[in-house]
Amino acid sequence: MAMSVVALAGGVGGAKLADGLAQVLPPERLTVVVNTGDDFEHLGLHISPDLDTVCYTLAGLANRATGWGRADESWHFMEALKALGGPAWFHLGDRDLALHHERTRRLAQGETLSSVTRQLSARLGVRPTVLPMSDDRVRTYVQTDAGELPFQAYFVARACEPVVQGFRFDGVETALPAPGVLEALGSANAVILCPSNPWVSLDPILEVPGIRQALAGKVVVGVSAIIRGQALKGPAAKMARELGIDASTAAIADHFRGLLSGWVMDTQDAAEAERVQNAGAVAHTTDIVMKTSADRRRLAEEVLDFARRLTG
Amino acid sequence: MAMSVVALAGGVGGAKLADGLAQVLPPERLTVVVNTGDDFEHLGLHISPDLDTVCYTLAGLANRATGWGRADESWHFMEALKALGGPAWFHLGDRDLALHHERTRRLAQGETLSSVTRQLSARLGVRPTVLPMSDDRVRTYVQTDAGELPFQAYFVARACEPVVQGFRFDGVETALPAPGVLEALGSANAVILCPSNPWVSLDPILEVPGIRQALAGKVVVGVSAIIRGQALKGPAAKMARELGIDASTAAIADHFRGLLSGWVMDTQDAAEAERVQNAGAVAHTTDIVMKTSADRRRLAEEVLDFARRLTG
Repeated sequence: MAMSVVALAGGVGGAKLADGLAQVLPPERLTVVVNTGDDFEHLGLHISPDLDTVCYTLAGLANRATGWGRADESWHFMEALKALGGPAWFHLGDRDLALHHERTRRLAQGETLSSVTRQLSARLGVRPTVLPMSDDRVRTYVQTDAGELPFQAYFVARACEPVVQGFRFDGVETALPAPGVLEALGSANAVILCPSNPWVSLDPILEVPGIRQALAGKVVVGVSAIIRGQALKGPAAKMARELGIDASTAAIADHFRGLLSGWVMDTQDAAEAERVQNAGAVAHTTDIVMKTSADRRRLAEEVLDFARRLTG
Repeated sequence: MAMSVVALAGGVGGAKLADGLAQVLPPERLTVVVNTGDDFEHLGLHISPDLDTVCYTLAGLANRATGWGRADESWHFMEALKALGGPAWFHLGDRDLALHHERTRRLAQGETLSSVTRQLSARLGVRPTVLPMSDDRVRTYVQTDAGELPFQAYFVARACEPVVQGFRFDGVETALPAPGVLEALGSANAVILCPSNPWVSLDPILEVPGIRQALAGKVVVGVSAIIRGQALKGPAAKMARELGIDASTAAIADHFRGLLSGWVMDTQDAAEAERVQNAGAVAHTTDIVMKTSADRRRLAEEVLDFARRLTG
């Protein structure tokens, strides 16, 4: 019988491993719990970048070149908006825009984000369960040398250029896990921390009251988002350096100390295995770069085998 | 010296004559005052169908086949929205959507509709002044055998099928003419009632307190939207019959009794000229069908010549 797995995920890297897991596990055995700290309001729309990336990826619709939005996309709305002098800093494709509109319309009618996500992901053709970490509003702020910035202002408008000093997840103290999150964690044989940014993708999920606690006693396997001091995508390595942490896979494993049963890291970082073990996690080295769909599947199988060994 | 002209307009027919007038008059001599009774909220957007048709037409961007929206358009947003189960009854092109978004964004920031219209029409390349009839909210309701329906519900969702009994312009009693409307009327040598629907395009404008009064003593020339009992576009003839009025150009001229100095009607309706004279307007017959850009210009020149003769 297949394991029941909960994957905690942010955007691109997390979505890729979630897709690998979805290729291996029956859909009813996989729940992906997604960061919503990056959510924001733009043009009157509720935009959930990580939920969208996960859903588009699981639906086979994701744009692999950009890491966000849809592969089959046009930009006529954006071009016309720019010509009218509208705000053009956040790019919204014509088809992608429909998802934000429909989510916003349903939320305005009083539906919850998790209910909307369930229905829209089904419409997109997603088979595993995708849940926002919470139906409540949590907003990530990045504390920088240029002041405290809303996440998208830091990430998109400022292109991660300001020096990071810390993070704040506004609203997280009173947020409840979305319906289904604690149930899925309760019945999971393993929890996978996907290769997402530890500070701005995974920490917001873990800070939702009840979620970290639900991991106690579980087999928790993390997959590194860092190889040889470089982030596979995004600002994780830059953030680490700015926070005074060495941008190594072991440092990230250490960030999750007390939580991890196992840590999957790249073969190129094998020399750090001992530091990982000292951080309390069993280290497993393999090729963690996911370039193709087959890479995702292979890594997912290896992560599940590793988790199974840690369970037994 | 050119005349100063104010044109009152609804959608397609009105926009065509406005375009003809714009070809003939210097831009500073033409103000188009547009019906906003058709405006509505959809997908959280403020949509102004008549303002859009007028602006797109004056900018040379209008879709001549549909009579609404832009000529160079794609429908990817709409296709994706439909696939997600969203409301697809009102069609919004990808480029057109940007205009609604930018208008809505600016209105939400506290700008007035007339200010937003001035800026966005300039961005589109419109040279004459285009003004909404009012910055205040006026909403046309159609009283039918299926109950009272918001205009777009009647016009688009129900395809003008219910039998019309009357109209109500919600909010019109307390609406103020948009800034510039009374000033433009005050200095106009002639006011043109464009070939728009008398009940749902022109009446809402004329019902805004102060506008009808400002026409007193002016040369007012109406152009028929009806030829041989048929509307050139839209439900005007059907409405007339349902209201117990004969769907003739003379009946429409009679609808504006007391307001008109002159009435421009099609040569095919020449037999009705006497009825028009009895309704108090000088009749002028010509070919009023505007198929080409040259037709618009020719009719505009003829309407202006007629108005000039009535002035003198």
